[in-house]
Amino acid sequence: MTAREVAAALGGTLEGEDVELRACGGLEEARAGDLSFCKDPKHVRLVESTKASAVLLPPEWSLGAPCSIIRVADPNRACMAAARMFAPPEPVRAPGVHPTAVVDPSAKIGEGVHIGPWTVVEKGAEIGAGAVVEAQVFVGEGCRIGANTHIYPQMTLREGTIVGADCIIHCGVRLGGDGYGFNNGRREDGSVYIEKIPQLGIVEVGDGVEIGSNTTIDRARIGRTYIGPMTKIDNLVQIGHNVKIRGYSGLIAQSGVAGSTEIGYGCLVWAQAGVSGHIKIADGVQVGPQAGVTQSLDGSVKYVIGAPAESMKEFGGRLLVPKLLAKLKAEVRELKSRVAALSKR
Amino acid sequence: MTAREVAAALGGTLEGEDVELRACGGLEEARAGDLSFCKDPKHVRLVESTKASAVLLPPEWSLGAPCSIIRVADPNRACMAAARMFAPPEPVRAPGVHPTAVVDPSAKIGEGVHIGPWTVVEKGAEIGAGAVVEAQVFVGEGCRIGANTHIYPQMTLREGTIVGADCIIHCGVRLGGDGYGFNNGRREDGSVYIEKIPQLGIVEVGDGVEIGSNTTIDRARIGRTYIGPMTKIDNLVQIGHNVKIRGYSGLIAQSGVAGSTEIGYGCLVWAQAGVSGHIKIADGVQVGPQAGVTQSLDGSVKYVIGAPAESMKEFGGRLLVPKLLAKLKAEVRELKSRVAALSKR
Amino acid sequence: MTAREVAAALGGTLEGEDVELRACGGLEEARAGDLSFCKDPKHVRLVESTKASAVLLPPEWSLGAPCSIIRVADPNRACMAAARMFAPPEPVRAPGVHPTAVVDPSAKIGEGVHIGPWTVVEKGAEIGAGAVVEAQVFVGEGCRIGANTHIYPQMTLREGTIVGADCIIHCGVRLGGDGYGFNNGRREDGSVYIEKIPQLGIVEVGDGVEIGSNTTIDRARIGRTYIGPMTKIDNLVQIGHNVKIRGYSGLIAQSGVAGSTEIGYGCLVWAQAGVSGHIKIADGVQVGPQAGVTQSLDGSVKYVIGAPAESMKEFGGRLLVPKLLAKLKAEVRELKSRVAALSKR
Repeated sequence: MTAREVAAALGGTLEGEDVELRACGGLEEARAGDLSFCKDPKHVRLVESTKASAVLLPPEWSLGAPCSIIRVADPNRACMAAARMFAPPEPVRAPGVHPTAVVDPSAKIGEGVHIGPWTVVEKGAEIGAGAVVEAQVFVGEGCRIGANTHIYPQMTLREGTIVGADCIIHCGVRLGGDGYGFNNGRREDGSVYIEKIPQLGIVEVGDGVEIGSNTTIDRARIGRTYIGPMTKIDNLVQIGHNVKIRGYSGLIAQSGVAGSTEIGYGCLVWAQAGVSGHIKIADGVQVGPQAGVTQSLDGSVKYVIGAPAESMKEFGGRLLVPKLLAKLKAEVRELKSRVAALSKR
Repeated sequence: MTAREVAAALGGTLEGEDVELRACGGLEEARAGDLSFCKDPKHVRLVESTKASAVLLPPEWSLGAPCSIIRVADPNRACMAAARMFAPPEPVRAPGVHPTAVVDPSAKIGEGVHIGPWTVVEKGAEIGAGAVVEAQVFVGEGCRIGANTHIYPQMTLREGTIVGADCIIHCGVRLGGDGYGFNNGRREDGSVYIEKIPQLGIVEVGDGVEIGSNTTIDRARIGRTYIGPMTKIDNLVQIGHNVKIRGYSGLIAQSGVAGSTEIGYGCLVWAQAGVSGHIKIADGVQVGPQAGVTQSLDGSVKYVIGAPAESMKEFGGRLLVPKLLAKLKAEVRELKSRVAALSKR
Repeated sequence: MTAREVAAALGGTLEGEDVELRACGGLEEARAGDLSFCKDPKHVRLVESTKASAVLLPPEWSLGAPCSIIRVADPNRACMAAARMFAPPEPVRAPGVHPTAVVDPSAKIGEGVHIGPWTVVEKGAEIGAGAVVEAQVFVGEGCRIGANTHIYPQMTLREGTIVGADCIIHCGVRLGGDGYGFNNGRREDGSVYIEKIPQLGIVEVGDGVEIGSNTTIDRARIGRTYIGPMTKIDNLVQIGHNVKIRGYSGLIAQSGVAGSTEIGYGCLVWAQAGVSGHIKIADGVQVGPQAGVTQSLDGSVKYVIGAPAESMKEFGGRLLVPKLLAKLKAEVRELKSRVAALSKR
């Protein structure tokens, strides 16, 4: 789009050259072809050095810019609107089953469902009205996918997995893999055995859940691994068998929750944190980045951090240890010399 | 199934309404349609508040329940048996090659092998008798898969990878990707170069190994990355090039082992732990969750934890530091006042 | 190959039996059929106990070996050359589109491009000359792949993703998934809402980048997530939306970089490390394994470690705390007894 077209679409006015614009970008990262934005004169230096081809500025901005200017009332909001215009058009996933998809005749496909190329839908599976199942997806036997759920390419639902309505499941997600469970020990003759414990349950995902790329959620040993409604899970997260997340919680990238643990409503597990198995995290508790939670959290502490996890106060105290120790050492040294002096009296 | 059918199948007797049962679940997590179980009267509160539709109880249980009761001699064992009845039927993977699979004519496919839709088997690959290779799998040139091994959908074996017999490989596993290896430095003219080191070896996986969803194991630089027999690997684990795991070991979710490290027999690497490259972990050593092992472990310490990893005793001592420091500070304060008093004498 | 053939190819001479050789391996890990190597007489013990079938030794080696010997001037270099001979032949990916690939007629496919079976190329996508897109890949609408880039099986490019020339993208990589972004709060009636923030930007990957198996890189909220030229990313790495990596940097396995962070030239983020969002890492800074970087690093410290990350000196000091504390405790105890003695005078 040209700067003039963008200005018109945003209800703003163009000052300077009518350049071609292709994307939005922050002042510092912008390059030729980018539209950037600034509201606050205190960032004037960034405006002066930006490589953007045009910048959205408020009417009162009198400091100029090294590129074309589009005047708008609210540069931040205008930039969001422009981003929408520049965004690659969302691919249309029209209702219909691609001729290359292998769909078992016993599967129930709802109205308006899109099924992409090379996707496999096994027997007894049900896909709700309006759902989109993109290319190269595997929907195992007896799986159920709720209405209007969007499944991106190359994810797998093992047999019996249930996904609610209005979910978004990204590429490479693995739902319903076997949980990690083995019995081992020694036989009477002294030899070691390792025996797989059958993983007989399923994964059930509630309505409105979003699951990020390459995240894995294991099927229950018995019963269900449960991801409650509106839970938002980032990329590369691991959720063990029989975990129960009540709902409205978030799990950030590369975090993990071990088997049979329960996580309440409105919790947030930050990136790379780990939660041990067989414990309970109360509603609203946040687990900080890289934290390691080894015991149940009853909610009396709202944010834990560190490994093993503790309160911010305890964690902060721990960080101060070297400083406190140095101070104490100096005090002891002084005491020593005073005691030495006293001894000589 | 109805409660009456379940009771009959378990050799128990039904008391109360003949409800429909669909799954097993713990007393706390159970909901309508679930069968739960309790053996120990000390959990009577959980029985009283369960939302299960029926509960398995021992004959001597006299405390009642808020739902139907199925009396059985051993409720725990009965629940496992019931879980098997409720479990989604394991999909039948009958012998045969799906018509949509692309199998090179030079590939050797053993007796009774199942190959699913959209799977690719490249030239020279060998698949042992009774193996199951599900949908959308990629088996590269010259790969060998042992008898009765089960490969779930959407995993990839790069060229030359060897997988033993009786293995289970879950969705999204990547075997034989290039290891991370680059030479870099500065040229005479001062410019920086980064040069890929060819990764010429393979991955070899022994018999009876299980590998969890989305785990990655890199091919060797030269020779083999080796996963010994009966090793059990969880989801999202990373194993670098030329790692050697002797066998009968476990690696829990999101752990990682860097290049050229050797791990003995019967080791256990817990979740999110990391093991540095070019070191050796002796037989039977356990690496605790989130630990970071930077040096070889000769087995004199059987369990390490923390980063850098140390013994439980050392780690525990470290955790006590703030408390010890506070105590010492108080002692120094007291000493100070005593010394001050002495000085005034 | 036989040992005689290997010797001839390497310009060396065979001493002992003409055995069959199949792979290279270090002295300790080698087994029957392997060719190993040794240059330095101080490793004679390892040579004496190797299970290799042949070993590469320098002409001056007079200590013998328990297997066939191939004499060569430089055993290390010869072993690399032998590894190349033993390596599974690199699969030929001849120019052409596999008949099972679904390629939109509007896609622009360059000269000499290989597209493998079951691959999907959506409308408007462009694939540069000489590129290899292997089996079961998903190339979304409007994606651009540069010349000579190699894409391994089963990776996905969501719509609009740009990949430069001469890149290597391994199996299971996910480019362009939605970033993690939600608005949440309470409505006037007290109920909680969680609302997805549209992720309108793209991922742009520069020339010469390598990305390891199952790594995920999210599309920008607006603008681009940018991976600069020659950046080398290992397996299972997470890169959040709007991250900008200038180039010539490395990210080792299972590390993660949160949204909007900038990483300079020539940086190295070691395994399992995490970098917080909205910060800047200066050129040439290294982030140690499992470190947690929470604040911008201006380059005055070249290597950080620990969580929160600090200099090696600070981190080392922290590790010494228990020892220093014990020493101080002993000093205080001694002071106490001296003060007690003084009091009695």
